[in-house]
Amino acid sequence: MMVHVHVRIVPRSGLLDPQGQAIEHALSALGFSGIGDVRVGKAIELRLDAASPAAAAATARAMCDRLLANPVTEDFRIEVEPE
Amino acid sequence: MMVHVHVRIVPRSGLLDPQGQAIEHALSALGFSGIGDVRVGKAIELRLDAASPAAAAATARAMCDRLLANPVTEDFRIEVEPE
Repeated sequence: MMVHVHVRIVPRSGLLDPQGQAIEHALSALGFSGIGDVRVGKAIELRLDAASPAAAAATARAMCDRLLANPVTEDFRIEVEPE
Repeated sequence: MMVHVHVRIVPRSGLLDPQGQAIEHALSALGFSGIGDVRVGKAIELRLDAASPAAAAATARAMCDRLLANPVTEDFRIEVEPE
């Protein structure tokens, strides 16, 4: 079955995120209030041929571990959506 | 109420995404198969003080329209998660 995989990779909490801080300041300057903890990272989407959604999630975790994310500085979250 | 807002911003389908192609090739080279349509974009996470999840989603859409996304080249998707 073909599934859509959405991967979100953001800097670990506790690590400095200058891009997130810049966006937080820019949003405040535009008049948005009540905002905090802005983190900016990568969003990766792909289609995957997998036996099941669980198998797709396992494959996506392996992709993150081996290529997409840096385990020292980044956290990732995976969502699988059947087509 | 405080909510977590997750924004995913990716290049519109149909637009060339060289970074996505590079990742697709790298994943194939690592032995992953059955992969297609890899798109790479930005993942933005923030905490927001809003009256309701619907109000938070509306605020996040306004942020995307005014600052975070380029409506000509990018699509965005918003998810709101109560704390």
